[in-house]
Amino acid sequence: MNTLKDKIRSEGIVLSDQVLKVDAFLNHQIDPLLMKQIGHEFAERFKGQGITKIVTIEASGIAPAVMAGLELGIPVIFARKFQSLTLKNDLLISKVFSFTKQTESTIAISARHLTAADHVLVIDDFLANGHAAKALIDLIQQAGASISGLGIVIEKSFQDGRKLLESEGYRVESLARVKSLAGGEVEFLD
Amino acid sequence: MNTLKDKIRSEGIVLSDQVLKVDAFLNHQIDPLLMKQIGHEFAERFKGQGITKIVTIEASGIAPAVMAGLELGIPVIFARKFQSLTLKNDLLISKVFSFTKQTESTIAISARHLTAADHVLVIDDFLANGHAAKALIDLIQQAGASISGLGIVIEKSFQDGRKLLESEGYRVESLARVKSLAGGEVEFLD
Repeated sequence: MNTLKDKIRSEGIVLSDQVLKVDAFLNHQIDPLLMKQIGHEFAERFKGQGITKIVTIEASGIAPAVMAGLELGIPVIFARKFQSLTLKNDLLISKVFSFTKQTESTIAISARHLTAADHVLVIDDFLANGHAAKALIDLIQQAGASISGLGIVIEKSFQDGRKLLESEGYRVESLARVKSLAGGEVEFLD
Repeated sequence: MNTLKDKIRSEGIVLSDQVLKVDAFLNHQIDPLLMKQIGHEFAERFKGQGITKIVTIEASGIAPAVMAGLELGIPVIFARKFQSLTLKNDLLISKVFSFTKQTESTIAISARHLTAADHVLVIDDFLANGHAAKALIDLIQQAGASISGLGIVIEKSFQDGRKLLESEGYRVESLARVKSLAGGEVEFLD
């Protein structure tokens, strides 16, 4: 998606070989028109699949997910993150380890909003090692729902997330695939 | 806003005289079309005011704020919440006490994205005692930016938030004003 790649080139900041900061338009400040274009692109790639719900994770997944939900005409559920969480009725729970923060957190979705009748599109802002995506998939599987695929805004293709997800049979559609951040430069695949 | 009131009546759950649960369409599961209508309504009420940025707080403020930002053609910044936060360069920081959770948290915005040249619309999902709104106003004032007003999706009019904000001269536009939750029934003002 060229609009997104241009935005990454012009406003993304390479903090290290591993870290791309996009808080000017995605992670902190949000460009609503770009989110609409991203939502449209996800809808184009996943339309006609019988998707009934989008599942994402707070906070940065919400904007692209809601725009995709608007295009597809379906609800969005965002998983909540907790530092700790006592078990509650009706909550599906999974764990996710953050490499960036070196902490484990708990994520949860209400079982009332996701059922075995649902066919789900997972949307997230980043795909790196795939830990967050795997935790979302775990929640969806606990609900007995099926998964159409994963829509990712920015994929760090030099990490193992895509390989891991594809090896388990999941379709991954990433709108920008970053091959390398070496030397402070963003290099894309394709 | 009648569409919103109808949605609250049909899908909101009154948990107590103080607590209205709207996680079926706003706080956990999100209805994207309703968010678009909410964004349109905020834009109608605040257009022509020279607003340059919307400021909201993660996570539930993001969807209505991004839709309003799309309508007004301006960026959205969402304040991040932290349980604790070591001081960092370029971060504006404030504290907010949550009555619901009985905990104090820190919220922050990057000073790079908000300047004295900005004229800000604050958007949030709920207005109760006004603590979160006041913390957002504090951040905006630290940046030296001016404030056009506050757009609230659901106001608990039986709590003091609006009175507090209006006493300090701020314009408050709430799309649904809940007068009472007594007896398990939602009663609206107007």
